[in-house]
Amino acid sequence: MTTSPARALPTLARRAFSTTAAVAKGSGGKPTPNKDHHIVQYNDDDFPRGFGVAATHCGIKKNGALDLGVLVSVSERPTAAAACTTRNAFKAAPVTVTTELLASTDGRARGFVVNSGCANAVTGSQGLDNAWAMSKSLTNALAPQPETWGKEKAGSLVMSTGVIGQQLPIEKITSAVPKLAGNLGLDSKSWMDLARAFMTTDTFPKLRCRSFNLAGQTIRMVGIDKGAGMIAPNMGPAVPHATLLGVIATDAAIAPSALQSALNYAVDRSFNSITVDGDMSTNDTILALANGMGTPGNSEIHEGMVAEYELFRNELTSFAQDLAKLVVHDGEGATKFVTVHVHGAPSYDVAKTVASSVANSNLVKTAMYGEDANWGRILCAVGYSSVPEGTIDPHKVSVSMIPAKDDPVQTPMVLLKDGEPDANLEANEDRATNLIQSENVTIDIDLGQGKGEAATYWTCDLSHDYVTINGDVSFVPPFADQKLTPQYRT
Amino acid sequence: MTTSPARALPTLARRAFSTTAAVAKGSGGKPTPNKDHHIVQYNDDDFPRGFGVAATHCGIKKNGALDLGVLVSVSERPTAAAACTTRNAFKAAPVTVTTELLASTDGRARGFVVNSGCANAVTGSQGLDNAWAMSKSLTNALAPQPETWGKEKAGSLVMSTGVIGQQLPIEKITSAVPKLAGNLGLDSKSWMDLARAFMTTDTFPKLRCRSFNLAGQTIRMVGIDKGAGMIAPNMGPAVPHATLLGVIATDAAIAPSALQSALNYAVDRSFNSITVDGDMSTNDTILALANGMGTPGNSEIHEGMVAEYELFRNELTSFAQDLAKLVVHDGEGATKFVTVHVHGAPSYDVAKTVASSVANSNLVKTAMYGEDANWGRILCAVGYSSVPEGTIDPHKVSVSMIPAKDDPVQTPMVLLKDGEPDANLEANEDRATNLIQSENVTIDIDLGQGKGEAATYWTCDLSHDYVTINGDVSFVPPFADQKLTPQYRT
Repeated sequence: MTTSPARALPTLARRAFSTTAAVAKGSGGKPTPNKDHHIVQYNDDDFPRGFGVAATHCGIKKNGALDLGVLVSVSERPTAAAACTTRNAFKAAPVTVTTELLASTDGRARGFVVNSGCANAVTGSQGLDNAWAMSKSLTNALAPQPETWGKEKAGSLVMSTGVIGQQLPIEKITSAVPKLAGNLGLDSKSWMDLARAFMTTDTFPKLRCRSFNLAGQTIRMVGIDKGAGMIAPNMGPAVPHATLLGVIATDAAIAPSALQSALNYAVDRSFNSITVDGDMSTNDTILALANGMGTPGNSEIHEGMVAEYELFRNELTSFAQDLAKLVVHDGEGATKFVTVHVHGAPSYDVAKTVASSVANSNLVKTAMYGEDANWGRILCAVGYSSVPEGTIDPHKVSVSMIPAKDDPVQTPMVLLKDGEPDANLEANEDRATNLIQSENVTIDIDLGQGKGEAATYWTCDLSHDYVTINGDVSFVPPFADQKLTPQYRT
Repeated sequence: MTTSPARALPTLARRAFSTTAAVAKGSGGKPTPNKDHHIVQYNDDDFPRGFGVAATHCGIKKNGALDLGVLVSVSERPTAAAACTTRNAFKAAPVTVTTELLASTDGRARGFVVNSGCANAVTGSQGLDNAWAMSKSLTNALAPQPETWGKEKAGSLVMSTGVIGQQLPIEKITSAVPKLAGNLGLDSKSWMDLARAFMTTDTFPKLRCRSFNLAGQTIRMVGIDKGAGMIAPNMGPAVPHATLLGVIATDAAIAPSALQSALNYAVDRSFNSITVDGDMSTNDTILALANGMGTPGNSEIHEGMVAEYELFRNELTSFAQDLAKLVVHDGEGATKFVTVHVHGAPSYDVAKTVASSVANSNLVKTAMYGEDANWGRILCAVGYSSVPEGTIDPHKVSVSMIPAKDDPVQTPMVLLKDGEPDANLEANEDRATNLIQSENVTIDIDLGQGKGEAATYWTCDLSHDYVTINGDVSFVPPFADQKLTPQYRT
């Protein structure tokens, strides 16, 4: 990582305690651990059939890192596309373009262009023009759409991430995209390069593959995502905005409406169930692309094919959860991965609201950082969750800690039983300390209303390094040793 | 402040990086400034007539600091009482008792007992018994209720703050209360002692007086509150829970229902419009007491007396705002006081929701700490505020910074105009830096929907010290050099 020279302070602003100087001394506390063990290397054969990818450094990131990538479906079958995008009222230009493209083509796309280093957000009409130019630069560089795709012309989706309020260097992008489109790769290295082109404050590229059997044939999926801060997505179908970006490409054959429906379900239970800092970005976008190359003989799955659809949807959900968890592992300053599981709730929405409340609590998150099994704070966050009054019966709530998989003792430890501290709590303090010191902490909350519904949220701790990363104007994220005036930093 | 000896870690739990050890090195960053300049000394004559107060150290705080206090109305007129208490589903025992007492006496009370060091929260039926015993220990120690109060017997309200999940040392309290009731003072020192008996992690006692003219007579008010963390109150009438505690006592004559109604209005625009960390406590309680001693000839104000009622309500609101701001000034680790003013909104609720979203954003709060005029984060928090979709028109939103009162230049600085960065933004970077380096920062957000409705939220920055105070198990708040197992810390 590079650091910028300290900004000259105007005379009026000089003070005995310059934050810039003071914070630069070090954030104190526990250092954020290296996260490279989350990188997985795959074989060329692990990736879905029929997607070509390429990435380059086109000049947005000043440090020479990859900042532009494309994915193109090279399938003879029309490729289904779906998107979930941010519900933030300030939606970035690429979100608008992607949404309009999907609406105008009934959910078909040739592929996408992604850039990092500049979010193309809050950029007015020029920003919109640039996002369209980015899209067309890929579509125009491709061979004509195969006749098998039908008459309707599919376009190229776009995603951007990086700083807000700056215009894209659009010529750099539009001149680089045709070269990328002429040099598509299907190998593992090309995919990893594409994952790197997504990165901003991420400390490792996020790429996963999975395969499963669907109606007797092997289906492959690849997923890429990025994000470390400004993470509290709440994405709906086709509503655009950009800090969490992701794509899942599969060679399954599935109709666009079924793909969108499955993606909505999956995103709700994965990307919309993670938080780093509770701040929902303006550019959050998850794309899904399905090109049918893995099941050449099969017709597209639709929602009426209940068994196949549900199998696909559940695999997609579980895969999206794997990808979403990578973002939490790479949360800014995170030293712990915390799972909040709520069950015994009257509805899924109640379970999710309670889990979100606990996962977003600064007091719970600092307690996790401090390795403090503080059930008072957990309880407090359960109690103030924004569910209708009377939904939670304090006398029925139980809270336990679940040991990590590698813990030699697998018995859960009860902190609170039916609304009161467990009788053995003080005697078990060493065990609580032991559990809380794990890198993976699981909090189990039973609302006690029968079997009920369940929901899970994934979060990280709130550390000194989070404050440094977001509060120190001399800290420059890896992508930008360019001069950034403070108000342009996301 | 005292610090506890490091807790012995169980063998299994020993690791190369013990958080306890690492964090204890120092939190890094900018030190939290001393807040003693917020203490105001008053004359005996500034306090409302007819309230006697006393405080002592009864043995809850192990360091000998004041931890128990009483207030008694010595008026011949019946004293009106009202309360706003937490909406957290886990309500502490004293909240339940205070609520029940007010309901059973139609809003009359003799006074209250308050203790700090133990919140009497999550303490089951024994906790309830103790809260009742605390209440009765005061009522029973007082001379019989004057006949002028009517037949219905008024009781004593109760408030507790401190650690969760521990039982009160009730004998210490019930034996000390009668002595306090026999030694009531009406002087400035007695009031300041009472304010000190409220304190937990507070760094200074919070006491204010004010007087105003009502129907030709001088009315006096005194206010005490406490709170530094776990601050994001959302209190409604008569719904009990305990980290923000406060009381406003006045010698005005006002009917209980009008007092409750005025208090609801005031609390919504003061204590319910502040945040330190977004965590709503289980014990938050604000009491109001009015004993009529300042206007001996006047009958009680009721809501039908529109001019008098609104004058009283508006004074109460402005006074409650002064008190609420003291809590933000003393926010855990706070180095800045930030005002978020939203106007041009279609309704008060929308204005308040948007202001709350910005005031609670960790990214905005760390930007304030870093003295970074980051309009991108402000905009982002406006955009994800939980108002109905379509309420905010991104193209109409403007964001400015308002200079502090002592700034030689009083012109606001526009960051964003009608949804786009202001044209002069880059040229004015020095001015932005200058404004953000003030201890008092005001963010003005115009939603651009005509004159519209307005709301204000008050918040502080998120600093390294906040993480240390809440994330370092070796940090012990000033009130407790007693051994606290980690799970009992609030």
